[in-house]
Amino acid sequence: MDSLTKRAIDLDLSDPLASYRDRFIIEDDLVYLDGNSLGRVPIDAMERIRDVVEDQWAHELVLGWDHWLHSGTRIGDLLAPLIGASKGEVAICDQTSINLFKLASASLEASGRTNIVTDVGNFPSDRYVLESIATAAGGRLILAAEDPTARELAALLDDDVGLVSLSHVAYRSGAMADGAEITKLVHGHGALMLWDLAHSVGSVHVHLGEWEADLAVGCTYKYLNAGPGAPGFLYVRRDLHEKLEQPITGWFGHADQFGFTEKWEAARDVRRFLVGTPPIVSMAGVEVGIALTTEAGIDALRTKSTMLTALFIEAAKSLSSHGIEIVTPLGPSQRGSHVTIRHDSAFQIATALRKRGVIPDFRAPDLIRFGFAPLYTTFAETIRAAEILREILELRTYDALPATRKGVT
Amino acid sequence: MDSLTKRAIDLDLSDPLASYRDRFIIEDDLVYLDGNSLGRVPIDAMERIRDVVEDQWAHELVLGWDHWLHSGTRIGDLLAPLIGASKGEVAICDQTSINLFKLASASLEASGRTNIVTDVGNFPSDRYVLESIATAAGGRLILAAEDPTARELAALLDDDVGLVSLSHVAYRSGAMADGAEITKLVHGHGALMLWDLAHSVGSVHVHLGEWEADLAVGCTYKYLNAGPGAPGFLYVRRDLHEKLEQPITGWFGHADQFGFTEKWEAARDVRRFLVGTPPIVSMAGVEVGIALTTEAGIDALRTKSTMLTALFIEAAKSLSSHGIEIVTPLGPSQRGSHVTIRHDSAFQIATALRKRGVIPDFRAPDLIRFGFAPLYTTFAETIRAAEILREILELRTYDALPATRKGVT
Repeated sequence: MDSLTKRAIDLDLSDPLASYRDRFIIEDDLVYLDGNSLGRVPIDAMERIRDVVEDQWAHELVLGWDHWLHSGTRIGDLLAPLIGASKGEVAICDQTSINLFKLASASLEASGRTNIVTDVGNFPSDRYVLESIATAAGGRLILAAEDPTARELAALLDDDVGLVSLSHVAYRSGAMADGAEITKLVHGHGALMLWDLAHSVGSVHVHLGEWEADLAVGCTYKYLNAGPGAPGFLYVRRDLHEKLEQPITGWFGHADQFGFTEKWEAARDVRRFLVGTPPIVSMAGVEVGIALTTEAGIDALRTKSTMLTALFIEAAKSLSSHGIEIVTPLGPSQRGSHVTIRHDSAFQIATALRKRGVIPDFRAPDLIRFGFAPLYTTFAETIRAAEILREILELRTYDALPATRKGVT
Repeated sequence: MDSLTKRAIDLDLSDPLASYRDRFIIEDDLVYLDGNSLGRVPIDAMERIRDVVEDQWAHELVLGWDHWLHSGTRIGDLLAPLIGASKGEVAICDQTSINLFKLASASLEASGRTNIVTDVGNFPSDRYVLESIATAAGGRLILAAEDPTARELAALLDDDVGLVSLSHVAYRSGAMADGAEITKLVHGHGALMLWDLAHSVGSVHVHLGEWEADLAVGCTYKYLNAGPGAPGFLYVRRDLHEKLEQPITGWFGHADQFGFTEKWEAARDVRRFLVGTPPIVSMAGVEVGIALTTEAGIDALRTKSTMLTALFIEAAKSLSSHGIEIVTPLGPSQRGSHVTIRHDSAFQIATALRKRGVIPDFRAPDLIRFGFAPLYTTFAETIRAAEILREILELRTYDALPATRKGVT
């Protein structure tokens, strides 16, 4: 047994979060390192979803709306502490791209400016939505280099830029931006700052309040383990609520939802960013995912996540002679909970890993992401993945595999 | 036993759909007449949702996306025959108000005009969304009288009207519009026609193709029994796909979703109206609800629905001396599957009905809706509801109840 494997075993033995693995349905021996795309199933989620269908929906019928109605803001309040927000600033609703559309449209309009800045490496759906909004406003989307520093962003900010939108943890590289520094910079140029927290929530510290961030969106099916396509969330700083008018004026955003007045009147709180009826069965997974993450504690999760990624990076460093380049920043404070490597044969290597029971995520054209979900990923799995990667590279077993592209975020 | 009760028993005995009641979880003796708000739980839905969570999500993990990815259009194709659409014209996605926003925005822009017509009785969320879109286009929302005839609509149509949007079955009165006649009228004025099918799908005949309807939206949690807040659907006639550009340009609408190109490029088919990741657990309920409705057959469902509403209307007619007015059209071809009555003490009467185990739906200020879901509502229940209503009216047991407002669609 080599020294890293021994260390991994010791780390698992002393892991204060070790018992959380038993809170998930794990009936396979996969080394599942794609929890940053779709998290595993919490046992509580299975039970809660059964309860919602077989007890609430079946027996309460339409009267269930008495407690389902405000799920979006009620569960939003449960999420708020995990992202440094206050009660009343967060809602669970819709999908991330729709939430981005609502908040980016509203904030660009409120800014009185026409341009939006993001980075070329931001998630494509974010870039597409932002570009349409800027174009519709008569402006344009300005693309910074991938994972921009504050200095690089500063060079792009002028009086036409009303909104800057970045992923806090980049989906490709895993680089984590400096939320406080960038938010301050953007405010200094009179623009609003919108963070996409899809790869952050549940795995790293997010301090929207401390950063004085204006807006945020994110999804719940990655580190929050809420289930495939579960609703996303949005955050709007409280003092902005009444300044922002989002374009999709549905009844869930009305000040008096059941007043059925002739005219639309926006709710004065975060509900104004809601639109329609929440998908209650899927919302059950969101609530459980947040509860489990809260119970484990974001401090402990971040500590373990950093140790998992550090261990993998240490093992991966020794593979540079096989053409492996580590894309993710090596400084622990500069990365999220996934590690990305680059290799010319990335697709074949990812396929070979899957054949060996290691599930990473391929990102065209040449990246492989390894996501470490601190609620259930073990240190032993982490080293096993690195060892299998080493074997594949040494034996070049991937050479014979087809080199086509595929990927789901 | 009076003659109507005898007739109801006979009708249940000869009901070809009677066995479908056993396909639902029904462990209560409620006379549930709010299936037009939230349908009951199909046993298949319970099982399918268990399967999606406990087998697919738990064991396939991220690889589940291989078959989940195109759920929206795959299940849309299953829905298409129920609304007279063709394969490739329907998608399941998002909530009704969001789908309305996407289609109404795109179609008003394509029309080159600025005004939208709807009716004052249309569902408030529809009116709010449509008004925002017209206003943003520099135009206005024009309100016809409730449940307008083609002649009444004709008086409002001019060269500034680019879109007419109506509910096919009105949520308040239960009146059913003439889809063919109104669509033709609207086309004659050079505008596009968008039907909201929320109260139609699964209970009445809808022939979008025959009507040459341009657009439609609807929800799945009423007569389709897909579960609380399950995703809605949209329909766009095939020849319009490439003419309409919807504003929320998310990755699920991209021509090459995983190409991750720099620029947005709309899919050339109905996928261009999709935005983000579908909520897979809630989608399972949609698929089951459509399958059950398809199995029973819309012809048989519509026949039974008409008989149920006719029976209730016959019983309710005799209550006019107690201040009951039947709001729903008496002609079978002019109504959907719910019957609405008006009474000055509607809220108290609805409360009294609930206390007696009859679940109708109150609509402020003075309407009570009784929804008849032909998959599980019996003729005996229908008469029982009418008899309990008669007792409440005769004994005036409702007088002592509080007269506050409340309601969920």
